[in-house]
Amino acid sequence: MVYGIIFGSKSFEHEISIVSAIAMKKVLDRQPVYIFVDSQKQFYNIPAEKITSKLFSSGSYKKFDTLTIKHGGFFSKTMFGETKLEFDVVLNLIHGKDGEDGTVASLLEFFDIAYIGPRLEASAISYNKTLTKLYAKHKAVAVLEFESFKKDDDIVVDNYPVIIKPSCLGSSIGVSIVKNRNELQYAVDVAFEFDDEIIVEPFIKDIKELNIAGACIDGEFVFSIIEEPQKGEFLDFEKKYLDFSRTSQVSRADISDNLAKKVRDTFAKVYNNTFTGSIIRCDFFIYKEEIVLNEINSIPGSYANYLFDDFNQVIDGVARSLPQIIDIKIDYAYVNKIQQAKGK
Amino acid sequence: MVYGIIFGSKSFEHEISIVSAIAMKKVLDRQPVYIFVDSQKQFYNIPAEKITSKLFSSGSYKKFDTLTIKHGGFFSKTMFGETKLEFDVVLNLIHGKDGEDGTVASLLEFFDIAYIGPRLEASAISYNKTLTKLYAKHKAVAVLEFESFKKDDDIVVDNYPVIIKPSCLGSSIGVSIVKNRNELQYAVDVAFEFDDEIIVEPFIKDIKELNIAGACIDGEFVFSIIEEPQKGEFLDFEKKYLDFSRTSQVSRADISDNLAKKVRDTFAKVYNNTFTGSIIRCDFFIYKEEIVLNEINSIPGSYANYLFDDFNQVIDGVARSLPQIIDIKIDYAYVNKIQQAKGK
Repeated sequence: MVYGIIFGSKSFEHEISIVSAIAMKKVLDRQPVYIFVDSQKQFYNIPAEKITSKLFSSGSYKKFDTLTIKHGGFFSKTMFGETKLEFDVVLNLIHGKDGEDGTVASLLEFFDIAYIGPRLEASAISYNKTLTKLYAKHKAVAVLEFESFKKDDDIVVDNYPVIIKPSCLGSSIGVSIVKNRNELQYAVDVAFEFDDEIIVEPFIKDIKELNIAGACIDGEFVFSIIEEPQKGEFLDFEKKYLDFSRTSQVSRADISDNLAKKVRDTFAKVYNNTFTGSIIRCDFFIYKEEIVLNEINSIPGSYANYLFDDFNQVIDGVARSLPQIIDIKIDYAYVNKIQQAKGK
Repeated sequence: MVYGIIFGSKSFEHEISIVSAIAMKKVLDRQPVYIFVDSQKQFYNIPAEKITSKLFSSGSYKKFDTLTIKHGGFFSKTMFGETKLEFDVVLNLIHGKDGEDGTVASLLEFFDIAYIGPRLEASAISYNKTLTKLYAKHKAVAVLEFESFKKDDDIVVDNYPVIIKPSCLGSSIGVSIVKNRNELQYAVDVAFEFDDEIIVEPFIKDIKELNIAGACIDGEFVFSIIEEPQKGEFLDFEKKYLDFSRTSQVSRADISDNLAKKVRDTFAKVYNNTFTGSIIRCDFFIYKEEIVLNEINSIPGSYANYLFDDFNQVIDGVARSLPQIIDIKIDYAYVNKIQQAKGK
């Protein structure tokens, strides 16, 4: 399977996406094709052998072919017309805005281009932390209690410490732990710099965190190992940034088989069927002996390849079992009926 | 304000969208520009004076200029390059799939084209009836109890009659009232023809229905009149279809000022701030003396113009106060830092 990796775009995680895309070169069995989206929403075809992070920071990516998105694919201009960029399936590797919010998924969906990644609704659910929590509760998956606030709301916190997050960003950007009333306003201002909505959750020190990635392939789940991430208070942006370039295996969390099974079952509840077509990572907490969903990473850094024993088998499996959309026939039955009634 | 009306696309409501778009010609103060999306996802610029429903059913729309979507707008080819289609703001008038699910909103958002219509997240919330209900509850707005089912689920109904709907369609397509167990399977099969998820709600006969449209313009709400739709058991597709071409005023519901105020307040709760940038219609029930949200029409038929006293003022107001997105600067700070650390 040859993947067309789409990455970059205008997001706070633009650079993370570049790092993540470069990492995939080491991971995939077959050399991918690269489609870079710059901040002007121009598409470029970057040769895999030329890809380095400096190519983008220096602006020299602009020397490569531009692409236009149209029905069926990405096209570059040639002397006598245009050529379609050859690949089997797009791999959506745009982290954060444009990628994880469903924008690029919509583009690919609209133009009938096959892709791995969350569909539009799945994106909306996982991108907005309030929606994630409403969705999880509906699926009988526990979440931490929370409150969400808009810019003009009166923010009242009764019990400290709390964690304050922009509703719609990943990678710890704009996230603060607030230990007392004095620290509140600053943290709120920081979070609102990144989003119009913020959420406030209790901060629980030394909470056990377990991450698991997976996908559903033809009705069967494939799970990664369960990892217990090593961390300080929480991963800051820079640490997480480096984390996105990981291509080596990590060690399994030291948990009972019973707990591991429960984690996998909870993952499946979250995934089914909304996330079909994507490989996601769920970050869970173990809190009061319950498995609590913290976050859904609908496009995890370099697709969480380092959590899988055989990543290529997983990704190729997903690529072969993408969700089919119901075909809609446009037959103008009603327009014709009205025209007949009018005698036209 | 000159609007670029985008309509059509590959949806069960393709024809409804055409009717709705044609109706807008009578309603808008200034002649709009028309962008038709055919089922092949090709964009066409249709001259306003040539637009009739027959143009589309006959396929003769294909004689008009095709358009390409790119950063900043829609472009047509000319002898020496390309011309940008001139309009101020797009009016998203694609009903159902592609329009109300957020797909076309994403396209416009991605390519920085100003538009009236629900944003991506608002679309996901209003398009999927399960999400609508979760969202409404979170906003302290009542909804009818419901259950949602996927294709392989065991569907058990305890109390009849119920109403069965595909999760993600409007215009009564695939909706059935089921009076007893014998009718259940057929109705379920019909609904699943249109979607992979269905919802089951109690059907309450002679329930009072109240519709209201509105928008928030610069922090101030503008409401339409409140209409009590006249109906049989419920609007079937054909009736609703004709309804989409309405351009004349309807009569106000005969309700108390107090109830009218509560309806407006409930509308505002639903709208704020998720639906900024759009004109929506909320369909409420009055049930057990409570205002219950039935449905959010995020792109109502011909923008529910017939419910407003001065529709042009409303739409121009929305066009002038579209939501601004937070500007993101891509400065390659992290990539540069890493390169410095490596001594490059």
